[in-house]
Parts: sequence; structure tokens; C-alpha cells
Amino acid sequence: MKVMSKKVAVVLSGCGVFDGAEIYESVLTLLRLAESGAEVSVFAPNIPQMHVVNHLTGEVIEGETRNVLTEAARVVRGEISDVASAKADEFDALVVPGGFGAAKNLSDFAVKGGDLTVNEDFLAFAKAFHSAQKPIGLICIAPAMAAKICGEGAQCTIGNDADTAAAINATGAQHCDCLVTEFHFDETNKLVTTPAYMLAGSITEAATGINKLVDKVLSLV
Amino acid sequence: MKVMSKKVAVVLSGCGVFDGAEIYESVLTLLRLAESGAEVSVFAPNIPQMHVVNHLTGEVIEGETRNVLTEAARVVRGEISDVASAKADEFDALVVPGGFGAAKNLSDFAVKGGDLTVNEDFLAFAKAFHSAQKPIGLICIAPAMAAKICGEGAQCTIGNDADTAAAINATGAQHCDCLVTEFHFDETNKLVTTPAYMLAGSITEAATGINKLVDKVLSLV
Repeated sequence: MKVMSKKVAVVLSGCGVFDGAEIYESVLTLLRLAESGAEVSVFAPNIPQMHVVNHLTGEVIEGETRNVLTEAARVVRGEISDVASAKADEFDALVVPGGFGAAKNLSDFAVKGGDLTVNEDFLAFAKAFHSAQKPIGLICIAPAMAAKICGEGAQCTIGNDADTAAAINATGAQHCDCLVTEFHFDETNKLVTTPAYMLAGSITEAATGINKLVDKVLSLV
Repeated sequence: MKVMSKKVAVVLSGCGVFDGAEIYESVLTLLRLAESGAEVSVFAPNIPQMHVVNHLTGEVIEGETRNVLTEAARVVRGEISDVASAKADEFDALVVPGGFGAAKNLSDFAVKGGDLTVNEDFLAFAKAFHSAQKPIGLICIAPAMAAKICGEGAQCTIGNDADTAAAINATGAQHCDCLVTEFHFDETNKLVTTPAYMLAGSITEAATGINKLVDKVLSLV
């Protein structure tokens, strides 16, 4: 008898920490999922990025536009689809790496804070996982969307910065302090979160927390 | 007594397989180096990319220009410097991930084949490692530059495609068939090469060969 692979959707928010998906977090997530034998499909919204940031200087490049889906395709060798076409009932779990793209493209948390809105297509996709009681993993700043996806009171991590924690609480979520090498599990919502590069001082620190998050998410399938 | 870290330079060629550094290969290389306790510095040439490719469609975007150093900065959260300023005597080893950037930006192998030229700053940096008998690791298509760096007869891998192998031999190197999960070691030149995404069908396959390459390079320091 063939063992069925666990089917996991990963949603990216661009390509690069300052205006898109954090690349280390994205690759570490995909690596751990592949090592665990999961069958992975990757999605991103087909929308313009909020910003294009020069990653050498950290400055916004005025007047330049890039598309989130097209740039996210760089991370995954072109193997990616529009999240608008994604069907949650084809997957067992959802994982969303961080980077400013989660707060600039998947949502507008970076500029709106607690008054954020979440990209409509991504939100519908993510909420379908929650409604079906399928596990969701949110990494780094992606938990800023936890309350929008799972509802008020969703427990999540962001690291240990008081201001950011307050901003997370303002979204309706309940912030929980967490080490970079650990994760928090909100059992009610089957929601797993880890700080990653909200705190990580190295790629190995980020990997430790992300590996544990991925393992936890897969254990819930 | 404090054990001295091995100091490794990694040179990237952009951000994305079709016009820059292959992102999985780049992150897998940096992850293994970090896990091994190496002290890593990352460099790229401060030059325009040969192409900007839409990674969703695979098509060249006519009229768009991006800078190799600025885009490579996305992979490493901005922690990168111009290879023109890199000093080989500060490092114990050099590793170069692949992606078309190695054949379009670090060199022009993608268009010139055996008549390739290599970016002057990168070539001077890489040749200084060879002259000092320090180990060099070249991944995926990066071995197309092996003969320019190490001289005629340098042994290297590219996978098992006959046409590409012939093109590699035309550069003056000596192609050696190699599995994606293995590496080839040219002892004379302290040159370690592995096919990675010239052959890899998955990120785990690529990781197996890259991890062995990194381990071999570090063992030679």
C-alpha cells in the first residue's frame, strides 16, 4: 500500500526580506517539507509589490514596480501559481514564511498596523484551511495576519519586541513570547507560529525554529 | 584556546536561477557552511545583469536592467559586498553556487561557450585562491569557469549531458560524469565540483551533493 504524501501549500510574498518573502525562511521551509516527504505547491498573489527596496542600501526605489508572483517565482525556479487559483480542499496544511512581503503584499500591516487588511485571495485561501480545521504555520511577521485568518484571540509569536507585540495584539491576536529556536502552538486554531528572523541572529537559529514549526504542522495532518 | 573559524568567501551572481544565482543552491551552501561553524562573507560583482528574466514565463524582459550585486543582496538580507573589494588572503576557501548568473554575469559562457570570458574582478579573486592552493568549490554550471580559474585540464562536473560536457571541455577543462548526490575532487587543483540543479530533481537531491561539496571544501582547509 502506498503511503499518501501530506499535501502542503506554501504562500510566498515576493523575493527578498525588505519587500517580499524572506529568502532563507522560504527555502528552509521548503527544504524541511521536502525532507519530510511532503508534496508541496507554492503560491503567491498576482499583484504589484507595495515597494521595491534596494536590498544593498535598504532604500525604497521610487517609481519602480515589480509583481509579487513574478518575483516569488525566482525563489522556486518558476514552479509557482497565482493564489487566486489555489483550492484549499486540495491541501492538508498551509505554511507562510515571513519577510516584509507578508506585511506589505499579503497584508498592509507594515503601514496600517492593527487596522490591517489582508489580500482578498490569500485571505479566502487561508480561512478555508482554518474553517476545515487544517493546520496553519505562520513564520516571522506573517502572524500579523493570524487574527484575520483564525479570528480574535488567536495566539501567535512575533519574538519579544514590546512594540511589535502590542501591534500584534492590536490586530486582535494574542501575542506570546517565544524563543527563535521554539514555536508556539495555539491548539484551538491549529495554528503554529515561530519568530524566525524577527529574532534570528543566524540562518542556523532560523532553521531550528522553522524545522520545529514544519514538523509540528505535519504532525497535525 | 579558541578554535579559529574557517573563513569562507561565497560569490553570488544575482538572485534567481534564470538570470542570477540559483536560490536553493545559494541558501543550501550558506546553511551548510553556517552549520559547520564557518565564518562566511558573501560577494557579487557590481555590474548590470546580462538579462532580466521573468521567472514565471522564462522570457527575457527586454529593456529592463538590474544590478547583480543589488539583486544578490536579496538572497543574504543585504549582507554582501562588491567582489572588486574582496581580498583572497582574508579567506581559507571559495565557494560559488550556480544558476545562469554564473554563465551570464560572472562569465559569458551562456552565449560564448568555450570562448567565454570571466568577469575580471571575480577572476582575479578566484585565481588568488588557486595560486595560494586554497580549496575552491564550484556548483552546477559554475564549473564552466574552472579552466579559466585553475588552468587547462582542470577536472570538473556538469552532470551527464553530452552537449554541455562538450562545451565544458571546449573551455579547456576536463569534464567528469558525476551523480547529483556526489562531487568530483580534482586533487591537483584542490577543486571540488557537483552538478546540483544541472541534474537535481528536488531540493533534497541538490542538498545532498552540495552538503558533500561544502564538507569536502572545509576538510581541505
